Formats: sequence, structure tokens, C-alpha cells
Amino acid sequence: MEQAKSARTLIVELCKSFYDQGWVSGTGGGISIREGDRVYMAPSGVQKERILERDLYVLDKEGEILERPADPQLKPSACLPLFFNAFKLRGAGAVIHSHAMPAILATLLYDKAFECTEIEMIKGIEGYGYYDKLVVPIIENTAHECDLADSMAQAIEAYPKSHAVLVRRHGVYIWGRDWVQAKTHAECYHYLFDVAGQMSRLGLGLPNKSSR
Amino acid sequence: MEQAKSARTLIVELCKSFYDQGWVSGTGGGISIREGDRVYMAPSGVQKERILERDLYVLDKEGEILERPADPQLKPSACLPLFFNAFKLRGAGAVIHSHAMPAILATLLYDKAFECTEIEMIKGIEGYGYYDKLVVPIIENTAHECDLADSMAQAIEAYPKSHAVLVRRHGVYIWGRDWVQAKTHAECYHYLFDVAGQMSRLGLGLPNKSSR
Amino acid sequence: MEQAKSARTLIVELCKSFYDQGWVSGTGGGISIREGDRVYMAPSGVQKERILERDLYVLDKEGEILERPADPQLKPSACLPLFFNAFKLRGAGAVIHSHAMPAILATLLYDKAFECTEIEMIKGIEGYGYYDKLVVPIIENTAHECDLADSMAQAIEAYPKSHAVLVRRHGVYIWGRDWVQAKTHAECYHYLFDVAGQMSRLGLGLPNKSSR
Amino acid sequence: MEQAKSARTLIVELCKSFYDQGWVSGTGGGISIREGDRVYMAPSGVQKERILERDLYVLDKEGEILERPADPQLKPSACLPLFFNAFKLRGAGAVIHSHAMPAILATLLYDKAFECTEIEMIKGIEGYGYYDKLVVPIIENTAHECDLADSMAQAIEAYPKSHAVLVRRHGVYIWGRDWVQAKTHAECYHYLFDVAGQMSRLGLGLPNKSSR
Repeated sequence: MEQAKSARTLIVELCKSFYDQGWVSGTGGGISIREGDRVYMAPSGVQKERILERDLYVLDKEGEILERPADPQLKPSACLPLFFNAFKLRGAGAVIHSHAMPAILATLLYDKAFECTEIEMIKGIEGYGYYDKLVVPIIENTAHECDLADSMAQAIEAYPKSHAVLVRRHGVYIWGRDWVQAKTHAECYHYLFDVAGQMSRLGLGLPNKSSR
Repeated sequence: MEQAKSARTLIVELCKSFYDQGWVSGTGGGISIREGDRVYMAPSGVQKERILERDLYVLDKEGEILERPADPQLKPSACLPLFFNAFKLRGAGAVIHSHAMPAILATLLYDKAFECTEIEMIKGIEGYGYYDKLVVPIIENTAHECDLADSMAQAIEAYPKSHAVLVRRHGVYIWGRDWVQAKTHAECYHYLFDVAGQMSRLGLGLPNKSSR
Repeated sequence: MEQAKSARTLIVELCKSFYDQGWVSGTGGGISIREGDRVYMAPSGVQKERILERDLYVLDKEGEILERPADPQLKPSACLPLFFNAFKLRGAGAVIHSHAMPAILATLLYDKAFECTEIEMIKGIEGYGYYDKLVVPIIENTAHECDLADSMAQAIEAYPKSHAVLVRRHGVYIWGRDWVQAKTHAECYHYLFDVAGQMSRLGLGLPNKSSR
Repeated sequence: MEQAKSARTLIVELCKSFYDQGWVSGTGGGISIREGDRVYMAPSGVQKERILERDLYVLDKEGEILERPADPQLKPSACLPLFFNAFKLRGAGAVIHSHAMPAILATLLYDKAFECTEIEMIKGIEGYGYYDKLVVPIIENTAHECDLADSMAQAIEAYPKSHAVLVRRHGVYIWGRDWVQAKTHAECYHYLFDVAGQMSRLGLGLPNKSSR
């Protein structure tokens, strides 16, 4: 595989790719990567597909700022406490936040939790086999992103097998042990959310029941 | 962030990106940027993804031509008075015109105005919170684009909070204080128009009512 | 605008772009450009996004081969007589053949001809205003592409205002006075075919009736 | 056409393109190419759009490993016996495995086999004319990919004209005599699966019946 890239390089590169896939338009969404005790994160409200390596914050394990971008007008992302939920409660190595259409539609098609079984891509999520029921909790959105921190933490505790939390009418947080797994999880979850929307559009119901 | 780029460079670069997203196909649509007292704008009826920096018009604050492209066959865009509505009435720093499918479909799903509430991306539009109702006026299309100028101006006056005007069966004009905000607004509005279409397709109604 | 490019360069460049837009996958579709008395055309059954300038045929105004590609296994495209219909009967400077999904779906949504009115992008088709009814004849497909030549010629005669002929369950031929107009026409026609499909999916009927 | 490229170069290049088209996200799917007696294949569970030439396995005609990637943590793809079904039973020169949405939806819209007739792109599949009925067998998915080998082999024997086998709720395997034909077949089959989904969404039924 490619030579190891720095967290800074990866964040810039992945944000461009996520933008092309419709995950982080309108300055929303993004990715944070942890390298040992240092967490790299984009500022708030910036065009994710245009950030540069020098624009990133570096934080310690508690979320305290170690390094700031040169531009004094920038502020840390409002996602900070949400990203740190996954870092602290799950030991995640990377967290992705997406506003992708299939994710937001999944929160409108399901009530308390997204459920899906017997779709091959479920196997791309660690801990799940083809016949398992994949469950992703859906929490209610709040006026301010930081106010999601507690209910997201509760959902993480209540759904210990999940590597993602959906936020109603908002999007999804997805993590993994490192950036590779976080990205793989994100691609698989987005695919599964999309299957639900596509099946519903075709009058085929939702993929939450066994086919047998 | 990136070093400041000139308006000419940005227009060429953004038109390519807008083309890839389906906003400016068939020579329609585009972006105009104001730098102080000088307004940069593409000619009429040219392939937006292929324009060069030297193809642009430069206009003063009143819309009078300061510089012309070398090619004598080119004419200023018919959007000129529409773009200047936003420059003059709102002090916009950039205006985007798009024919994107989600925008035109929104004008067919709604009557007098597009309405949307409780979708996270609303927060990307200046002046709006998650629980606010985002409203975008829809004006009727005319045979000639220049004839839209008055009704667009009226809609801008009548909807002082809106940063966009939809044109029935045609598309949308979106602006911001500078090109960054105009682009962010455009991405958020297009996303919200798309949510309306996607929800409608799934039989979920329109996002114009509170979920509570 | 860009400096004039040769027909060879343009065909290679445009085929890549058309592939990315889903118009010429599976070796189908393509573009032929006439430069004065010389017509440039891709061979039959090759991956359009991977052709090189040296792979093209050069034909005279009657369709006789002037230059062949180096590879002796290549044959002229089966589209040849179809492309020459537009060159001869309309004096076209370029013809595009597309299998795009919106085009094929339009042939399933309409009977004898695609009809559309009061959509802004109609104005991108030469000879049409916003309130005109744009009509594109639909001919029935045949087992062999060359057998379409006569019915396509008849449709061209019967619909003198049209710059396109749809082929049921197959795709569309679109032309213009030069490659720029052919491409603009193609983008506008594809957009309008897509509007019909999108409106139908939303239960909004077809765009073939006046809104007034 | 392009100069002959090595199997290693092609696999890396095509995986990027397949990723952009949504065929191989989440580390799933891929392509294997046979060059004479040597078969090139990506490892299991890696990001297909980021593999390098040195990451590939080289196998002999029986599937025995001749060369391994440098990274000792990598394992051969679980698709290995599935790819070799096509190499051995059909003498394929390349096999593509895709999880694309249109493929998985086709397995939900059809029962025992995908059927399609009178769509031009059928002609892109070797052995089929426009009026033929194209049939692709659908086998049931299993918990482990290797367990598909026998039922896939049976389907290949039972449907001697097919160059593809669909796997319910999973995806599709598609092959050809060389990488060019495999890719052409893959583009045509995906297009035809998509036609079925699009027609169904529009209430037009499935393309499995003659239009006459």
C-alpha cells in the first residue's frame, strides 16, 4: 500500500474525496485523525475541499489545543466534543462526520435506530456478519452541535457494537480504529443507508428483515 | 486556507467545479465576483467549464463595461441585471446562477416560496438556525432573462432574509458577502432543495413543517 | 476561449468527458466532427474514453475513407450512416451519439416524439424560445444500427426544427453547426430528457404542457 | 489504442475508475487479470482505489501463489475461488467483482435470474443481439464468500451464454476474454441492471418482455 502519510496530509486529501462524494458540502462535515496522543482537526465553517495542511488544529487527548492555524480568525470545529466522544469512549483513531443525503434520509425512514440485515456490505463493518442485524442508533438533533455531545455519548454506551451514530435530519458520525477502518466503515454505512433509500423508492420495503 | 486568488482565477476554477456538479451545463448559469468596485463576469452563451481568464468582462458598480474580452463576437451575459440586483440591493460580493436539477424541481414542488425547517444544513445559510423556517421566494420565469430583473428585485425586497431567489422552471440565483459565502450558500441551498425532492420521492412529504 | 483545437484532439477529449457523464459507456456512443470536407470518426466497438488521436478514421463528405487507423483490426463505426445523415441533410459540423439513461428513459415515457415546453434550458437549443414546444422525434430501434439510417433520415425531414433524433430503447443522435453547438445541444437535450424523468418520478406529469 | 499495459498497471488504474463509479467501495469488489498462465489479484480487505502495483498477488492457473505482496499482513482475496471459476470454466482473461447499487437492486427486483430484452446495450454483451433475451443467473448469498464457489460454478454451467453471475443482496461477477471485454461487459451489464431499476421506479415495469 501507499507509504504512511501524515495525519495532516490525509485530512486534506480525504476531505477532497469526501466533498466529491457529497459528504461534506457547504463547509459541513469532515474528518479528525488521532496520531498517538495528538488529534488533528479542521477549523469550524471552512470549505473542507480547500483546506491546507497548515489550517488544522492539533489537540491533546483531552481536547486541549496544542497548535493553532496561523489564521487568527479560525475557530475549532463545533464537532470537537462529538469527535472526542469516539476518541475517548471507543479509542477511535479517526472519526468522520458526514451530511450525505443517504444518511439524512435514513434518519427519516427509521425511528429509533437504523436496522439492516443480509446485505453483503454489512461484513465491511467490524464485528458484523452477513446474517447479523446491523443497528445504528439515531439521536435527535439539537439547535447547537455541541449540545449533541451527551446524547451521542449515551447512544455510544447503549449500542456498544455500533461504530456510528446517526443524527436525525442532520447526518452521521462514523469511526474506526484508524483512518483506514474509519473510511471503510463510512463507505459501508453510507452504502447501507443508500440501500434502504433505494429499496424504499422501489416499493421493496426496508432491509431490516431477514429474507428467509 | 489557500492564498488569495484573483476574481478571474476563481471564476474559471469555480465554473469547472460547478459544471461537474451539474449547475452550469449547456452554457447556462455561472458566477460573477465583485472585487471592490470591479465586477467580473463571463460572456453570454459560452461553455462555462472552458472559459479562460481573458474571456471575462470587467464592469463597474453600475454595470458599465470597463474591459472586454479580446473576442469581438462575445456579448455580456443576459444575467447581468440579475447579478447586479444582488450586488446593488444586498451588497453581495459574489452571485451564482445555477440550473441544477434539484433547484428546478423545487420550483415545481412548491408554490410561492420554497420552505424548509429542521434540516442541519439550514445553519449554513447566514441568519438561520436549525429551528427557523428557511424561505426562498419563487418568481415566475419570462421569455427573456433580462425581464426577470424587476420581479427578482421585488422578491429581494419582499424577502429580506433570503440570500437566494428561485425562478420557476429555470433555476436559482444565490449570493453571499464574498465568493466563499456565496459558494457555501449555494451548496447549502442546493442540498436543501435536494432534500425536498428526495423526501417527496420517498413519500415523506416536504421538509416545510416542524417535526415536533 | 481556448485556442482552436484539432478535430482529433477534441474527439479524444470530449469522449473522456462524455464517458464521465455516462453517455458513452460500454464502447457505445461517441462523437464525429467535420472539418471542412474531412470527417473524423472513432472506430467501432472501442472504449471511447481510451481512444487516441491516431485511432480515428478520416472520411470525405460522402463517407469514403481517406485515412485509416494503424491497427488493421479496427472497423469504422456502425454509426457512420447515422452521423452522415446529419452531415448531409443538415450540414452539421458535429454529431454526438449517446446512450445516456435520461435519453433512453425519455423514449419509454413518450410515444411518437419527446415534447417539452417552458423549461429554461429549451432556450439552449437553436430556434427555440421558452414558450415554444420543443419536439424530438422518436424512431423505433432495429437489430442492426445501420438499418436505422432510413427512418432517421425520414425523421430529420419530418421534423425540420429538431437537432436530434431519439431511438427507442437505444439512445439519441444530436448535432449542431460545429462541435461547440453540438455539445451545447447535447447538454440541453439531456437535461430536458432528465427533467421529464424526474418530474414523472415525483408524480408531476411530463413537461409537455403549458403551465398557464 | 493505448500501448499494451501490464496487468499490474491495469488493475491499479481500473480499480480507481471502478471506485469512482461506486463499484468497489468499502474495500469490496475488484478485478483480477490473467496474463497467459499468471493471474494477478488484489489482497483481501484493502482500499481498492489506493492499491499499488507491488500490493498484488500473482497466482498460477490453479490458484497457487507465485508471488506475494511485500506486506506480510496481507491475505489473498476471499474472491479467489470465485474469480477462478470464470478463469477455469470459461477461459476468462479478466473477472470483475462489483457491489454497485444497480446490481444489488437487480437481485431484489428479479427472482431466479435477471432478464432483459430490446435495450440497445444488450448488443455490447458477446453472443447477444437486440431481440435476444439476456439472462443473468442470480445465486443466493452465503455468510462466507468462499461458500459461493459451488453455486456460482453450477450457475455458470447452467447458463452457458452468460458472462456474469449475480449474487443476491451482494453484487455481481462479470468476465470477458480479456480485460477490455470484461470491462465492456461490466459497463453494459451495469447499465442494463440500472435500466431495470429506473423503469421500475417510473412504473414502467421491467425490461424483460418484448415490446412488440
